[in-house]
Amino acid sequence: MVADLGDVNVNLYNLQDSCRRIQEAYEKIVAAGCIPLTLGGDHTITYPILQAMAKKHGPVGLLHVDAHTDTADKALGEKLYHGTPFRRCVEEGLLDCKRVVQIGIRGSSMTLDPYRYNRSQGFRVVLAEDCWMKSLVPLMGEVRQQMGGKPIYISFDIDALDPAYAPGTGTPEIAGLTPSQALEIIRGCQGLNVVGCDLVEVSPPYDLSGE
Amino acid sequence: MVADLGDVNVNLYNLQDSCRRIQEAYEKIVAAGCIPLTLGGDHTITYPILQAMAKKHGPVGLLHVDAHTDTADKALGEKLYHGTPFRRCVEEGLLDCKRVVQIGIRGSSMTLDPYRYNRSQGFRVVLAEDCWMKSLVPLMGEVRQQMGGKPIYISFDIDALDPAYAPGTGTPEIAGLTPSQALEIIRGCQGLNVVGCDLVEVSPPYDLSGE
Amino acid sequence: MVADLGDVNVNLYNLQDSCRRIQEAYEKIVAAGCIPLTLGGDHTITYPILQAMAKKHGPVGLLHVDAHTDTADKALGEKLYHGTPFRRCVEEGLLDCKRVVQIGIRGSSMTLDPYRYNRSQGFRVVLAEDCWMKSLVPLMGEVRQQMGGKPIYISFDIDALDPAYAPGTGTPEIAGLTPSQALEIIRGCQGLNVVGCDLVEVSPPYDLSGE
Amino acid sequence: MVADLGDVNVNLYNLQDSCRRIQEAYEKIVAAGCIPLTLGGDHTITYPILQAMAKKHGPVGLLHVDAHTDTADKALGEKLYHGTPFRRCVEEGLLDCKRVVQIGIRGSSMTLDPYRYNRSQGFRVVLAEDCWMKSLVPLMGEVRQQMGGKPIYISFDIDALDPAYAPGTGTPEIAGLTPSQALEIIRGCQGLNVVGCDLVEVSPPYDLSGE
Amino acid sequence: MVADLGDVNVNLYNLQDSCRRIQEAYEKIVAAGCIPLTLGGDHTITYPILQAMAKKHGPVGLLHVDAHTDTADKALGEKLYHGTPFRRCVEEGLLDCKRVVQIGIRGSSMTLDPYRYNRSQGFRVVLAEDCWMKSLVPLMGEVRQQMGGKPIYISFDIDALDPAYAPGTGTPEIAGLTPSQALEIIRGCQGLNVVGCDLVEVSPPYDLSGE
Amino acid sequence: MVADLGDVNVNLYNLQDSCRRIQEAYEKIVAAGCIPLTLGGDHTITYPILQAMAKKHGPVGLLHVDAHTDTADKALGEKLYHGTPFRRCVEEGLLDCKRVVQIGIRGSSMTLDPYRYNRSQGFRVVLAEDCWMKSLVPLMGEVRQQMGGKPIYISFDIDALDPAYAPGTGTPEIAGLTPSQALEIIRGCQGLNVVGCDLVEVSPPYDLSGE
Repeated sequence: MVADLGDVNVNLYNLQDSCRRIQEAYEKIVAAGCIPLTLGGDHTITYPILQAMAKKHGPVGLLHVDAHTDTADKALGEKLYHGTPFRRCVEEGLLDCKRVVQIGIRGSSMTLDPYRYNRSQGFRVVLAEDCWMKSLVPLMGEVRQQMGGKPIYISFDIDALDPAYAPGTGTPEIAGLTPSQALEIIRGCQGLNVVGCDLVEVSPPYDLSGE
Repeated sequence: MVADLGDVNVNLYNLQDSCRRIQEAYEKIVAAGCIPLTLGGDHTITYPILQAMAKKHGPVGLLHVDAHTDTADKALGEKLYHGTPFRRCVEEGLLDCKRVVQIGIRGSSMTLDPYRYNRSQGFRVVLAEDCWMKSLVPLMGEVRQQMGGKPIYISFDIDALDPAYAPGTGTPEIAGLTPSQALEIIRGCQGLNVVGCDLVEVSPPYDLSGE
Repeated sequence: MVADLGDVNVNLYNLQDSCRRIQEAYEKIVAAGCIPLTLGGDHTITYPILQAMAKKHGPVGLLHVDAHTDTADKALGEKLYHGTPFRRCVEEGLLDCKRVVQIGIRGSSMTLDPYRYNRSQGFRVVLAEDCWMKSLVPLMGEVRQQMGGKPIYISFDIDALDPAYAPGTGTPEIAGLTPSQALEIIRGCQGLNVVGCDLVEVSPPYDLSGE
Repeated sequence: MVADLGDVNVNLYNLQDSCRRIQEAYEKIVAAGCIPLTLGGDHTITYPILQAMAKKHGPVGLLHVDAHTDTADKALGEKLYHGTPFRRCVEEGLLDCKRVVQIGIRGSSMTLDPYRYNRSQGFRVVLAEDCWMKSLVPLMGEVRQQMGGKPIYISFDIDALDPAYAPGTGTPEIAGLTPSQALEIIRGCQGLNVVGCDLVEVSPPYDLSGE
Repeated sequence: MVADLGDVNVNLYNLQDSCRRIQEAYEKIVAAGCIPLTLGGDHTITYPILQAMAKKHGPVGLLHVDAHTDTADKALGEKLYHGTPFRRCVEEGLLDCKRVVQIGIRGSSMTLDPYRYNRSQGFRVVLAEDCWMKSLVPLMGEVRQQMGGKPIYISFDIDALDPAYAPGTGTPEIAGLTPSQALEIIRGCQGLNVVGCDLVEVSPPYDLSGE
Repeated sequence: MVADLGDVNVNLYNLQDSCRRIQEAYEKIVAAGCIPLTLGGDHTITYPILQAMAKKHGPVGLLHVDAHTDTADKALGEKLYHGTPFRRCVEEGLLDCKRVVQIGIRGSSMTLDPYRYNRSQGFRVVLAEDCWMKSLVPLMGEVRQQMGGKPIYISFDIDALDPAYAPGTGTPEIAGLTPSQALEIIRGCQGLNVVGCDLVEVSPPYDLSGE
């Protein structure tokens, strides 16, 4: 069952209020026994969704496919934007941090040790360069082992893919995953206890092909 | 002198706070004796700029070139977005309403009398269809007469132009002004007491030519 | 009421059979008292629609806005394709030929007198060059006079417009109508006894803007 | 020698008649001792070409590079369209089914066993996922072994390639072959008894680069 | 008869040498009694062509349709590039200056009187702003009068057109001519003693439509 | 420190003179102790840069990443263009030929042994097909061994990459390097004695994405 955000009445001009509305809507969706598949929208949306998930299931595992870790603390003084959702989730105890895997991470950083926060929380960070020209079938075997039978949420940011394959996004990074690797990841989730998933950061105006 | 908004530290995730920061920055710019030419950004920006203008000059005249009147009251419960700046300006007394001219207005509307608010305030509303296939030199003569020697602000929304000429914008409307009419408008302002101007709603990703 | 051709089960691989299916579907639509507004598809579709129209209303008037007259006899031995619909309609007596007006006609031709057939049937052919840089309000006054109160069908081929405004079509011709002239034509139909209309030859892949 | 279909006078509005004309033209081309290299056009064209091939050579081997098997039975009641050519060829005995190899196959399917028909005929079906991130040099060694010295036809559908490399086609499927794999396939045919080949489903309007 | 520059063996890496080769080729073309229609290439090409023209016909009249006058003296110390051809032609006496008309001129300039050189030579300079929203039929009547029955060369730079209609060029300028005005100019040349013509500055990579 | 060629006053209309100006500018840059990183421009620019490099350092090693060897002798009688820079460098003794490596070479050739010149000079030529679907980490280990601690210049032609990843270039060749391989090459240079580098043949108009 697909959750149609049209019912949520998002507030385009107020991000905090939008998050509140999304959280409330997803609480109803989850309470109804649905497994929501969400099409974004930017990555902020995963934060209120995970609030609703954790309310029902307790802290969940996370398979996060992305070019960026999205665990910044704030930007321009704001704690809520598309670069911070997973930091907020950690702070609110929404994630089972020993069962968080981030795949496809790359991009420039100003710090010498850009993944220190993530690893200190217990996240597994799989860099894009560790995926280059390799099948991800073995990696997904390890992920299934780690996730076990407990609830897991999947958040797929389209910029995990190389921009040659998926140009329609706002913060493209070169040397990303290929479509065949993306399929290996998705197919590799078979058998997991998936309680929800999303595909975010798709921005059609950046994709000139119109597809 | 061009005001570089990079100095203003706009808050991308909080529109109210951004407006406050812009207003403060423009108060300094205006206090320094500058005539700011602002490149947007969406039309919300004109609201804090006019706050700064009116603080220095008192209520100003307005030449507003646009496909839309931007005098809505609110949307989704929010009073501040790119469809409401001139309603807010009227409410705060920032405009000399007898010297407000809106040119290029068109687009669909749900109401039978969509320009009632504007005209009741004393605005002159010149529809795009009254400009079709005509030189705007005579109109600008009337505008100069109306504006006289008192302070006037010029706000040019790129969607005033037909999207064949300026496709890079978020809310295109067919049957708009031509570049030659735009030049007639700009050249027709010669001699006016212009205290500031902006060009807004330019959104490069919508313009495939990359120009 | 909009007729959704999805109900018609068009046969993509057999044009004759598709025309038969469209005719039958439109006969039902018209019998139900509807005034169908059809979004094409190529111009062939107007032929079976007019068959259904004439079955109900008798020969109808036609306002045909297009770069091409679409009254060829055949191509490659076939009598049915997007260049022949109005020749077929004339042969079957579906049109009230004294009330047929074609606007926007242009494009190269191999013959010295390319509009002889049309004019010999009594059609009024208004060339694009007779529209250049002119308001079409006076022309539409004449059209309303000519059409009177009897049934009229409107067929609008998007290639009537200049390709700068509407590039998404398969046989573009330079120096066409402008969007403001198109609006003058549509608005100039107010008060006519319109029994159906279509917009055809829109082909999104040719329009790079994706709009 | 390149066969110029301009000589064939294809009938754009009647697919059956076009196939008949193509078959007759290729019978002459083949009778003249030529090895035709055909640039399509959609995949329907391979059917009349193979009719001409088999008339001269008897049943031929086939190296078919494609995202789709093109062995559907019918669509919308029609037996002849770009999804059925190889089913028709099998029925008419044009193929030496023990020497048919299909490479690059992928895409969604409604059935549990989508390749049953192909395999029951003796085709070798090499899925795209069996090619991912692998050199195809070993596969082509096996293909040369299987084909032996008897006549073989090569049919290359451009959608075998991933759409990042070849976007100009009508039914793109993600996670396809790479250009280097395509070159390995073509170079791997050296020494085979090739009696004809085609490149089909190239549709320039879908490729925005204009190359 | 169309002159195919492929025969001329242009030297892509040496502009002076290319001009010499073009001049020699055109001298042969003209000596053979041909009226060359040249498709450029940048505007430099008109200079060696006019050298060949004047050798045969003496100084010729010129109808020059362009956004720019192309009568600069030099750039970067070089006297030969696409901004100088008509200055060089004047210096070498190739033009009958009382029969030179430039139409469509516009664009920014650093000098107060940018057309002084042209007018001092006797050229008629028709600015784009004098063409806006007007039929050019009357202007062309005057041009025919001025040109009389003596030899005239037509040089059409595609950037004379507004970039909305002809984006494929390297130095676009807004507010240019329309396609209907271009046709009025070309058709208005009927009856003139045209000894050659060119269409220059067409650069396909800048036109995303691929047309 | 980045060398801004805007200071060099390149002569757009005279290639020989431009090269002289570039050489002089780079001699000053190098004399000042800078390691210039140059953004092209076409590949001709590497020739005058290497003249300046060798004047300071003597013959240098070269890591040349490109689809083409750029060691042609001449074209159209000219010895200086973007296909000849490294032939000129060899003739003038600017390269330490035993320390020249070319990576990514491919593209059609009319000769049976297209890399004979390069190999006879002692260059190592690594074809693109020897890189397909492989990590280049081992290759770069060999390169570092070969280069040792002596001065090396890096010249990266963007067309080394497959055009799916980098379409903005004038002579694209299919089946090229991937962005991940490009990063492996650049990162594999760590520790080398790099005295300068360039990125050339980037031509934005060919890249429709505008990025």
